[in-house]
Amino acid sequence: MSEEERKDIGDLGEFGLINHLTNDIKLTQPSSMVGIGDDAAIIKNGDLMTVVSTDMMVEGIHFSLVYSPLKHLGYKAIVTNLSDIYAMNAVPHQVTVSLAISNRFSIAALEELYEGIKRACELYKVDLIGGDTTSSNKGLIISVTAIGSAKQEDLVFRSGAKPGDIMCVSGDLGAAYLGLQILERERQLYESHPGVQPDLDQQKYLIGRQLKPEARGDVIKNFQKFNLKPTAMIDISDGLSSEVFHICHSSGVGAFVEEGKVPIHPEAEQMALKFQLDPITCALSGGEDYELLFTVDESELEKIRFMPDVFIIGDIVDKKDGITLHTTGGNIHPLKAQGWEHLKGK
Amino acid sequence: MSEEERKDIGDLGEFGLINHLTNDIKLTQPSSMVGIGDDAAIIKNGDLMTVVSTDMMVEGIHFSLVYSPLKHLGYKAIVTNLSDIYAMNAVPHQVTVSLAISNRFSIAALEELYEGIKRACELYKVDLIGGDTTSSNKGLIISVTAIGSAKQEDLVFRSGAKPGDIMCVSGDLGAAYLGLQILERERQLYESHPGVQPDLDQQKYLIGRQLKPEARGDVIKNFQKFNLKPTAMIDISDGLSSEVFHICHSSGVGAFVEEGKVPIHPEAEQMALKFQLDPITCALSGGEDYELLFTVDESELEKIRFMPDVFIIGDIVDKKDGITLHTTGGNIHPLKAQGWEHLKGK
Repeated sequence: MSEEERKDIGDLGEFGLINHLTNDIKLTQPSSMVGIGDDAAIIKNGDLMTVVSTDMMVEGIHFSLVYSPLKHLGYKAIVTNLSDIYAMNAVPHQVTVSLAISNRFSIAALEELYEGIKRACELYKVDLIGGDTTSSNKGLIISVTAIGSAKQEDLVFRSGAKPGDIMCVSGDLGAAYLGLQILERERQLYESHPGVQPDLDQQKYLIGRQLKPEARGDVIKNFQKFNLKPTAMIDISDGLSSEVFHICHSSGVGAFVEEGKVPIHPEAEQMALKFQLDPITCALSGGEDYELLFTVDESELEKIRFMPDVFIIGDIVDKKDGITLHTTGGNIHPLKAQGWEHLKGK
Repeated sequence: MSEEERKDIGDLGEFGLINHLTNDIKLTQPSSMVGIGDDAAIIKNGDLMTVVSTDMMVEGIHFSLVYSPLKHLGYKAIVTNLSDIYAMNAVPHQVTVSLAISNRFSIAALEELYEGIKRACELYKVDLIGGDTTSSNKGLIISVTAIGSAKQEDLVFRSGAKPGDIMCVSGDLGAAYLGLQILERERQLYESHPGVQPDLDQQKYLIGRQLKPEARGDVIKNFQKFNLKPTAMIDISDGLSSEVFHICHSSGVGAFVEEGKVPIHPEAEQMALKFQLDPITCALSGGEDYELLFTVDESELEKIRFMPDVFIIGDIVDKKDGITLHTTGGNIHPLKAQGWEHLKGK
């Protein structure tokens, strides 16, 4: 085809591209309950549902080995997939890991990567059951598939939110993004002044949120303990506003987010100001926090008031009322979905 | 660490590397029945077993876009994973597909890739239920996970072969390797004489075996129809001799392969001679044929004589008798496992 007709990947964005390529796919197998479009797919096996999620991390796109220790990288590759399983209100039990590696990696480097993978498996009680290891011409690529299970009646989708529901998150947002800004700044400093050793001890919290995030399996356990089933849920990998949009689109509803209620860690707040960034923008669009965003029926208010790590940030409203942000200044703006879109302009 | 101490990935080879990195992994989840070490992993779900296999294909390592049409590539990425599920005597029902793509790919190119993916899903009756699409700095990487199911009692592992068993393959070998040699020769010709259009019509069979292999789900169906359960099975992705070694090592047995019984297509035979290659070497070490290698109890001889696409190539013997090749010249040599080892020397 001619260059004139050529449509670039970046024109569609990540979600547009996936949608474009997969919107004609129909599920034909009796066991395929849910396919593309939620955090994970669902396969029916008798009463127990198998929940499957898969992700790919590419060097130079999702991580830089300049500042990502391989151990943390292995850990994060597992955790980000488990997060998708938890986001279905399911429990992960197994993972597979496929690697493409260039020969610049030594065996010791791969051992370090696997150390992180194994550590995450141990802590989250999942088994590494398979994978593939191959060479690449350039860089490191990690593809993880996580497999979990849940009873059919326990599964929570993106599509169940309804007007009146309370919208909650499980923890503070924006810190992972600010951790990345610090690391990027240090990398640039290091590249221009190779002798300078960065002092990152002051920013342990923010950097830790970026390099070694945790998946909120503890929140899922609390749901069971408190006998609470969210009406909709998603994990926050692309930024809060992008995830609010996903829930609203899937559920056919609107949302009202209270800026002042969005939890931001004090260190994230300070660092945002140092970088001359708006803290709330970091929290709304930063991504990679791997907290859970979920909605609960308004009758559950008493329950969530006593649950640890639940922050009420707004309400679900009618679709016609749109998706809006109520600022601390008292204004109401349409919320902008500015998620992580790696494909844009690359 | 110093360069002197550094151990390279190539020193261990693909299987050595996987083994080195994963040999300390223990399965802890009650549902994890089989982990790393067979064609696929097994997860228990009540009576039904979930069978999971994953593979990664990297541009420049596993394929060249100079001669792999994207449609065929998508098709092959699915089929090679389904082959691993069939090799457990299980039936695939779902796949996930993750892609890393550089922005040199147009949307039309990705549509073509997906056309092949969807075509394979349709023909093999599996659903595409999930995946991830991200950018890469260089090239195309495709990671597929296939999920299937089987009754526990139907599963066939690599480890069940015993002395006296008959060793069989489901079709001719070496053709995919020779197809690759033709394509490589044409690529080199094309690069030195860009105007020349290759005439590949004469080699449709060999090229087809390389670019668009099929997984032998029909053979698994025949097993059911004939009420035959192999004692051990593996799919031939790395070359017959490498797979014979896998079965022998897992089962703790030896094998006796009759050179004259290894099925080789007449076109493969002729092409091997044109390339001044030994046809049997192509069949033993070529790889990518995606036929099934399996062993059956000797009492099943009558059954397999009437089954289509079953070629008896030898016997399982005591471990102490080793793994040998009985040549058509009447000699007995130790069989060499010279499988596909992408990591070597790269």
